[in-house]
Amino acid sequence: MVKVGIVGGTGYTGVELLRLLARHPSVRVTAVTSRKDAGLKVADMFPSLRGWIDVLFSTPDEAHLQECDVVFFATPNGVAMHDVQALLSSGVRVIDLAADFRLKNIQEWEQWYGMTHASPALVAEAVYGLPEVNRESIRGAQLVANPGCYPTAVQLGLLPLIEAGIVDTSRLIADCKSGVSGAGRKAELGSLLTEAGDSFKAYGVGGHRHLPEIRQGLAQICGQKVGLTFVPHLTPMIRGIHATLYARLQRDIDVQALFEQRYEQEPFIDVLPAGSHPETRSVRGANLCRIAVHRPQGGDTVVVLSVIDNLVKGAAGQAVQNMNLMFGLPESSGLEIVPLMP
Amino acid sequence: MVKVGIVGGTGYTGVELLRLLARHPSVRVTAVTSRKDAGLKVADMFPSLRGWIDVLFSTPDEAHLQECDVVFFATPNGVAMHDVQALLSSGVRVIDLAADFRLKNIQEWEQWYGMTHASPALVAEAVYGLPEVNRESIRGAQLVANPGCYPTAVQLGLLPLIEAGIVDTSRLIADCKSGVSGAGRKAELGSLLTEAGDSFKAYGVGGHRHLPEIRQGLAQICGQKVGLTFVPHLTPMIRGIHATLYARLQRDIDVQALFEQRYEQEPFIDVLPAGSHPETRSVRGANLCRIAVHRPQGGDTVVVLSVIDNLVKGAAGQAVQNMNLMFGLPESSGLEIVPLMP
Amino acid sequence: MVKVGIVGGTGYTGVELLRLLARHPSVRVTAVTSRKDAGLKVADMFPSLRGWIDVLFSTPDEAHLQECDVVFFATPNGVAMHDVQALLSSGVRVIDLAADFRLKNIQEWEQWYGMTHASPALVAEAVYGLPEVNRESIRGAQLVANPGCYPTAVQLGLLPLIEAGIVDTSRLIADCKSGVSGAGRKAELGSLLTEAGDSFKAYGVGGHRHLPEIRQGLAQICGQKVGLTFVPHLTPMIRGIHATLYARLQRDIDVQALFEQRYEQEPFIDVLPAGSHPETRSVRGANLCRIAVHRPQGGDTVVVLSVIDNLVKGAAGQAVQNMNLMFGLPESSGLEIVPLMP
Amino acid sequence: MVKVGIVGGTGYTGVELLRLLARHPSVRVTAVTSRKDAGLKVADMFPSLRGWIDVLFSTPDEAHLQECDVVFFATPNGVAMHDVQALLSSGVRVIDLAADFRLKNIQEWEQWYGMTHASPALVAEAVYGLPEVNRESIRGAQLVANPGCYPTAVQLGLLPLIEAGIVDTSRLIADCKSGVSGAGRKAELGSLLTEAGDSFKAYGVGGHRHLPEIRQGLAQICGQKVGLTFVPHLTPMIRGIHATLYARLQRDIDVQALFEQRYEQEPFIDVLPAGSHPETRSVRGANLCRIAVHRPQGGDTVVVLSVIDNLVKGAAGQAVQNMNLMFGLPESSGLEIVPLMP
Repeated sequence: MVKVGIVGGTGYTGVELLRLLARHPSVRVTAVTSRKDAGLKVADMFPSLRGWIDVLFSTPDEAHLQECDVVFFATPNGVAMHDVQALLSSGVRVIDLAADFRLKNIQEWEQWYGMTHASPALVAEAVYGLPEVNRESIRGAQLVANPGCYPTAVQLGLLPLIEAGIVDTSRLIADCKSGVSGAGRKAELGSLLTEAGDSFKAYGVGGHRHLPEIRQGLAQICGQKVGLTFVPHLTPMIRGIHATLYARLQRDIDVQALFEQRYEQEPFIDVLPAGSHPETRSVRGANLCRIAVHRPQGGDTVVVLSVIDNLVKGAAGQAVQNMNLMFGLPESSGLEIVPLMP
Repeated sequence: MVKVGIVGGTGYTGVELLRLLARHPSVRVTAVTSRKDAGLKVADMFPSLRGWIDVLFSTPDEAHLQECDVVFFATPNGVAMHDVQALLSSGVRVIDLAADFRLKNIQEWEQWYGMTHASPALVAEAVYGLPEVNRESIRGAQLVANPGCYPTAVQLGLLPLIEAGIVDTSRLIADCKSGVSGAGRKAELGSLLTEAGDSFKAYGVGGHRHLPEIRQGLAQICGQKVGLTFVPHLTPMIRGIHATLYARLQRDIDVQALFEQRYEQEPFIDVLPAGSHPETRSVRGANLCRIAVHRPQGGDTVVVLSVIDNLVKGAAGQAVQNMNLMFGLPESSGLEIVPLMP
Repeated sequence: MVKVGIVGGTGYTGVELLRLLARHPSVRVTAVTSRKDAGLKVADMFPSLRGWIDVLFSTPDEAHLQECDVVFFATPNGVAMHDVQALLSSGVRVIDLAADFRLKNIQEWEQWYGMTHASPALVAEAVYGLPEVNRESIRGAQLVANPGCYPTAVQLGLLPLIEAGIVDTSRLIADCKSGVSGAGRKAELGSLLTEAGDSFKAYGVGGHRHLPEIRQGLAQICGQKVGLTFVPHLTPMIRGIHATLYARLQRDIDVQALFEQRYEQEPFIDVLPAGSHPETRSVRGANLCRIAVHRPQGGDTVVVLSVIDNLVKGAAGQAVQNMNLMFGLPESSGLEIVPLMP
Repeated sequence: MVKVGIVGGTGYTGVELLRLLARHPSVRVTAVTSRKDAGLKVADMFPSLRGWIDVLFSTPDEAHLQECDVVFFATPNGVAMHDVQALLSSGVRVIDLAADFRLKNIQEWEQWYGMTHASPALVAEAVYGLPEVNRESIRGAQLVANPGCYPTAVQLGLLPLIEAGIVDTSRLIADCKSGVSGAGRKAELGSLLTEAGDSFKAYGVGGHRHLPEIRQGLAQICGQKVGLTFVPHLTPMIRGIHATLYARLQRDIDVQALFEQRYEQEPFIDVLPAGSHPETRSVRGANLCRIAVHRPQGGDTVVVLSVIDNLVKGAAGQAVQNMNLMFGLPESSGLEIVPLMP
């Protein structure tokens, strides 16, 4: 059994990790930390876990994380970078669900996140945890930077086009829509049902932290800078991301076949039949990315529709997938969940 | 492996059965019938099942249901009563998720459902599939009448009080709220997002078909007729039932202890700590009934809050639980699902 | 033109007052206070008001409220009681949308609201602003205590029965459901779309501050204490309250006629035809209470369904109705709004 | 008083027309037709109109539409084209809210709408009712083709850029999101709360009927064919359209000033301050289009965010605005509505 610790178990990625790990056959959750709620039963805060998770929240000191095999950081940005080195030194492997180790360019990270990076040396060492790109590196990684939710949906949707070198990478567009859980479990005015409900809006058009992360991932594939316009929107639902991606084809090609071949062996990517429109609910609760490719009116604009559950393939599920790779477990272990529909 | 057939697989109880059975370790779904959609892959209608369910819809003739060990009827009311006898005669066991075999009083059934019953003899034989009341009879049953969603939530909430004989059974009140999936997967005006969304209403105050079913269940326990006012409401959510139950205590008693003791051994009933308010989402997707008991201001009115997922413990999950009992499988087999939250 | 000031304009009752007053033909809003946001244009916080409301938030000092004809307090409980006396002394009339002057029993108020009352003398003087009960007193009032949202829906639903003396007032039940805006425009975890969305729950079963307010109102009508069980619930919608009320008839009577006669002259009460089920959306945005009365199965339990928009007839609309009465304006002035459907 | 008839009053655009006209100071609704519901009070179908609209649905024969000054067709596509000529010949002016007279190219219309056009001669005569483009022609029109909802939001968002001739019109992108009421008041599976709720999807990526309408409108402005990729999406809300528009700037220009100047005199277009993100709810129930313009990272991609209420500025409100122009009434008459927030 892999001994697992979770730092910061009171947010949505934390509780989602617990939902997945509760049923994982090869894992035991030994500690869930929360300074503020230490002593409280986790299931008292999250009644959905009653009967599944018996541990109490503990302080980081009580948690004995150095005795874990792996520690997940489900903390706000800027926390893990302070604590990871000590764990790594004790031989504990780490998966950070926040953004601390995602951007290789420290200066860019500091600009977008507005703080000084506390352990730049670890950034170079960290493996970006998108298995469909970095599977082999993840297996051997001590420190995994789990991708952001938008970056997962966008990169998986554009990957085949960019690898094939058939689109103009200087003018990509990612028009993305997220459910409200993407904002986290925080008491913020804009996330109230009365504010975000029955309404739709864009946000962060001027610049969003996931923009440099997506650009870095795409640039790495095509070997040069990419031009990307990224517009995130808030949609009145709980879970789910829908990325609508636009690119200009430079060569006439069967895009449907391209996508099907690229993802043929991928356990968590589902390329839908030509002409499909994936719904976010078709992946609700599951570690899946479903994708459809279109060429409206047969023109040279390719439109990719890519959906994930932001809390699963966009966060906790992908983290478990990474853990499975790191510990030589079956990649689908604990992730064999049928999406909840309706 | 238990060979399972599903008659009427295009509604919400049908697709929910498939979600649960897809992961059931001792079951193989061999046929899903739909006259209208015969030949179509089930997963083409329900993309959430892609990768999990490979069968095609078939006509009843093609389905060879008589070779199944058990057949679930996920059909509208009035269908199963025509087809069940032939299956039973072939040695196939049957679980009807509709109302055909729920009411023992044929005349009452015909009044509420507005049709002549096609096989009244089978009604007497059928076992009412509420395991918390009839577990032993279910084990040996050939034909199970799976309870309605409201009746499940209401009976489980009132059971301990009525068994203990401590409330006035002549003036019970069940104020119930259901998500829209309770209306089924039918193109009806009143179930549109634009009609049922962002609004709340009562319906059927003059009389609802679940009223006689609840009354029958409660009367059986206390050995006499009960007086029940049942008011169902439609609430703008997808899944979930919340029953708020009112009864007059005739004896001073520790109701919290009463409920805890009654349900101590029940795998799918969770009595919450005193003072709790269960949310429907705390059982979303899971075969659970969570219950809290209150005595406001310490008075003699007891208020019970009982929540289920109408498609799981209120329909397909309970049906699988019944199947497990009938075939000597572990009662929780295929039902070990952590609720989806948020 | 009536000169109007609003204290505390950043909450939902404040912005709703502004929506209504923006179109009121006999009113000019001269000041909207907010210490925190002084200097900001009101329409910059609430873009829905762009083009309708030009004033800036001001500090209470800058607001010159003593020059207003009437001041609305749309503040949290416990604010108005400190500030009202000075305004009244300047000849300004006051309508408090919070609870400070609703309960005549100071001791009871202090228990439920957890603070010492700062101006108990004014409580006696204040008129409870339910026009359907106190219309004449409101006309002459200097200080109006605007009723709570639940108390409005419940009292209007029970009024005809209690005035007629035909129900057992010792065992009334009010099962109430509210949209999330009832919790106000505050960054609270439980009001997030991700927490309150797609779920349903009761709350405050042990005791809710609106209980003594309802009891006081009903007792005043029947001249004796009433026994009331009040269970509020949170339903995943933005606006609207649905009260489902249960009482035992002590005399056989035509309840439909009773309600129609009682409310025949009331401009904002709509008794629906027998057999109806009012939807909350049928009053969305309007100063209306729609009511239906049922006697299920012709028994002696009467079920009343009463719906309002909690922000209009349950708060700001009723406050404007009170202002109209106080200033001799047509009672419907500024309130002639067709509900928004769908 | 302008005498108004409405053909097809049972859909959402019909009931929305009634909401607006009920409060219009210069209008009397004399007939609302519905073959199926003739004899029923309109307010019995739409309780939100109780107290506001007294007329009954009538058959077209009973309606004496030729005595009206103006008739609105709120019918499905393909109805008005059969009935309009007779009305025009009687001197009645007509506003068609459906698509029958929107496309000047008859052949193109017949392809997209799958039927033979019944009165192609009238198409040439009809004025496309977008006041911000065709105000003067509308004043004199006998027959107005009221624009579609998506076309209104998209054209108003792109208009200033295209008029100014500063963007590449060969590669425009319109990524649009609509609430479910855009699908009409029809019992369709895909519009159920259980299907469209808590989920997000694109649809019609291969081709949508509003594409040729938008292309025609834009081409008319720039005097040449435009290249447009149009992707509509369904978002889980009741009302509202959000268009996110992408174009490549060919000249460096102050786009904020451009938009502000273009719409300075427009009563129903609101250009938000630089850096804004309009929410659909900020126009809920009102005849408004709010627009924000961005140039992310100061690049040459301009992003326009344009929101309307699809039932108001996208349908019934715009129709009333057109009627006001046609009859020399103040353009805002009956449209002075403050958006409903929250």
